[in-house]
Amino acid sequence: MVKENIKQLLEDIRKHIPLVHNITNYVTVNDCANAVLAVGASPIMADDILEAADITSISQSLVINIGTLNQRTVESMLASGRKANELGIPVVFDPVGAGASGFRNETVKRILSNVKIAILRGNLSEMSYIAGLQANTRGVDSAEEDRKHDGSSVAKRVAEIYDCVAAVTGAVDVVSDGTRVTRISNGHKMLSKVTGTGCMTTALTGSYAGAAYINGSKDYYSAAIGGIMTMGIAGEMAYETAGHMGTGSFHVNIIDAISIFSNEIIDERAELNEE
Amino acid sequence: MVKENIKQLLEDIRKHIPLVHNITNYVTVNDCANAVLAVGASPIMADDILEAADITSISQSLVINIGTLNQRTVESMLASGRKANELGIPVVFDPVGAGASGFRNETVKRILSNVKIAILRGNLSEMSYIAGLQANTRGVDSAEEDRKHDGSSVAKRVAEIYDCVAAVTGAVDVVSDGTRVTRISNGHKMLSKVTGTGCMTTALTGSYAGAAYINGSKDYYSAAIGGIMTMGIAGEMAYETAGHMGTGSFHVNIIDAISIFSNEIIDERAELNEE
Amino acid sequence: MVKENIKQLLEDIRKHIPLVHNITNYVTVNDCANAVLAVGASPIMADDILEAADITSISQSLVINIGTLNQRTVESMLASGRKANELGIPVVFDPVGAGASGFRNETVKRILSNVKIAILRGNLSEMSYIAGLQANTRGVDSAEEDRKHDGSSVAKRVAEIYDCVAAVTGAVDVVSDGTRVTRISNGHKMLSKVTGTGCMTTALTGSYAGAAYINGSKDYYSAAIGGIMTMGIAGEMAYETAGHMGTGSFHVNIIDAISIFSNEIIDERAELNEE
Repeated sequence: MVKENIKQLLEDIRKHIPLVHNITNYVTVNDCANAVLAVGASPIMADDILEAADITSISQSLVINIGTLNQRTVESMLASGRKANELGIPVVFDPVGAGASGFRNETVKRILSNVKIAILRGNLSEMSYIAGLQANTRGVDSAEEDRKHDGSSVAKRVAEIYDCVAAVTGAVDVVSDGTRVTRISNGHKMLSKVTGTGCMTTALTGSYAGAAYINGSKDYYSAAIGGIMTMGIAGEMAYETAGHMGTGSFHVNIIDAISIFSNEIIDERAELNEE
Repeated sequence: MVKENIKQLLEDIRKHIPLVHNITNYVTVNDCANAVLAVGASPIMADDILEAADITSISQSLVINIGTLNQRTVESMLASGRKANELGIPVVFDPVGAGASGFRNETVKRILSNVKIAILRGNLSEMSYIAGLQANTRGVDSAEEDRKHDGSSVAKRVAEIYDCVAAVTGAVDVVSDGTRVTRISNGHKMLSKVTGTGCMTTALTGSYAGAAYINGSKDYYSAAIGGIMTMGIAGEMAYETAGHMGTGSFHVNIIDAISIFSNEIIDERAELNEE
Repeated sequence: MVKENIKQLLEDIRKHIPLVHNITNYVTVNDCANAVLAVGASPIMADDILEAADITSISQSLVINIGTLNQRTVESMLASGRKANELGIPVVFDPVGAGASGFRNETVKRILSNVKIAILRGNLSEMSYIAGLQANTRGVDSAEEDRKHDGSSVAKRVAEIYDCVAAVTGAVDVVSDGTRVTRISNGHKMLSKVTGTGCMTTALTGSYAGAAYINGSKDYYSAAIGGIMTMGIAGEMAYETAGHMGTGSFHVNIIDAISIFSNEIIDERAELNEE
């Protein structure tokens, strides 16, 4: 059962302290580093082409986030991604704003063409864009086929096309590996009022993926669900403690909750539905 | 009356959720994004020349902040500024550190020469520098004319020269459109002990400006006063709640206060003096 | 006695408000700026080659931190460092990640070859790498000599090689100027669970160094001890107030504690052992 796998991964994060290499945006990078530390892993940020691949090669997972991509860092993302693939290190990809500009779309395409992704996480709009990327090349008919997208069909489709674990996060989060589908009902709507909760979710997923790499299970399906569930539960806990105070205190309490996260809390609060 | 206009704008922010494109500095960018979210708008950060103008064109306001300008992002500021002008989207400009280096001064000049600004907000030193930019080209005499600068004369002069709304913020904040002048007495001196309260003020102003663009009023005078007053009142509320704890808790509580900001709070606390 | 010197420096920070120029990383830059403000100094961040040296020349100390170095900012670090040397302004250097990549190692070498450092602060791994830099050029034998490194021997050695104040921070912090050694036993292990506490320590050290520059003492030995001790005590205070809540609240309370830091607190809590 996936919940038991996640509990094992959480233990392994804290036992093995995976080094998580983040090439990410400058808006939420501090929160990402603190979320990774809070769950028990170790973050490293490095984005210059002269060292990106070197840093990846000493890490146990790579997180690529294009929130504030630029021409300089995109090359580093590609170099690190290729190095991670070469070494079998899992790559987690957050296609922030896919669909919003030609440059983002082009970059998403380049990354997906050049780097084998272990976990791809985005919101419905971003992931629908990615699902459609391929659809376009297959012509209009396939778009007709699934006029009625929900998170589940999009996640499944992205997972199939890119042979990865795909996560569509929103009011309900859906994770698929192309065959299995798990829905995560944890979370709180206030999470959308703090910038970077999506990025932090991806960084947490990178932490779980690092543990799955170290322990040899390579269970990136459970890692994705674990990262997303951790943020969802942290949001619930933060809301209970500080939601009435406002989004600033809520934000601080998200990190608090991640730092006291435990298997007991998972047993109490996890709301996973496996199909 | 300007207070009623601000209340309408606050409602419109929350109803229409303007997308606020920020090309800003990496020191305070997280706070800017969270301030925009807290007041009810939606932030987007993008600074690469390959997408800056595209992102501006899907936004309802553009905020340019040169806090940590560099040669790469200055070109993006110009491209986005021109695109905003082309589409009639309001541009809010924060000339951080104007006067402190030749590069900043040159950049301020380039932006003011190439982009029509809706709202220009800075502290007395920055805005005096900008008022003087023009004075220099008119010779020494005009500088003689107003040897005794206060916020009001500087704001009025900048507003006249650049045909914009100009705001000089400090112990008392002054906003002018060249004709009207409004003084805002809200605020707390502890705001100067947290980095980015000026940047957040500008980002809030961008949120109000986005609402003034969407609702068709184009009332950027009220938008500027609204953004500045929101930060001032948030500073007062944060001080009351957390000032005794220190500047870290005060900082968090600024965002809290913005997120619970309301027309009732405006009625209770606004200290505006219109001339 | 060093404690009395630190108390004088703290008073001078608050009296003279040194401007501290930081060329630092985008992960922890907001915390660094807020730590500098909290202790009573004034931060300025600027990293473009077109203005870096200009900004240094109006500052009273320069802090160089290579946490997220890139080819563009490394040149600015060198230009600012040279300008600081020319003007006698103290340079504080934080060699984040020294030893972790060829690019970092090369950059550390370039900075140490081109810029005279007043204070060099790193963790044991970074500082051991720097001590070894020189050792390598002297051949293998010297490495044999001190097979058993502890913080004290490393600090002393770096101080001797680079004729600077060297600080090795960890469970116990050690500062040496090559002759004297001071151990600082303040601090809390939870500090390692928040990103940037090392960077903030360096930024605080830059604030004290700015005061030592302004007051003419040039006592960078006390400045280094003062900056490190301030963070250590702030960590203790934050743990007492908020440690039970989690690392998010602890993080906020570090800034709180720095902002209420005082000579009374130094008298109560300082744990310095001078050799």
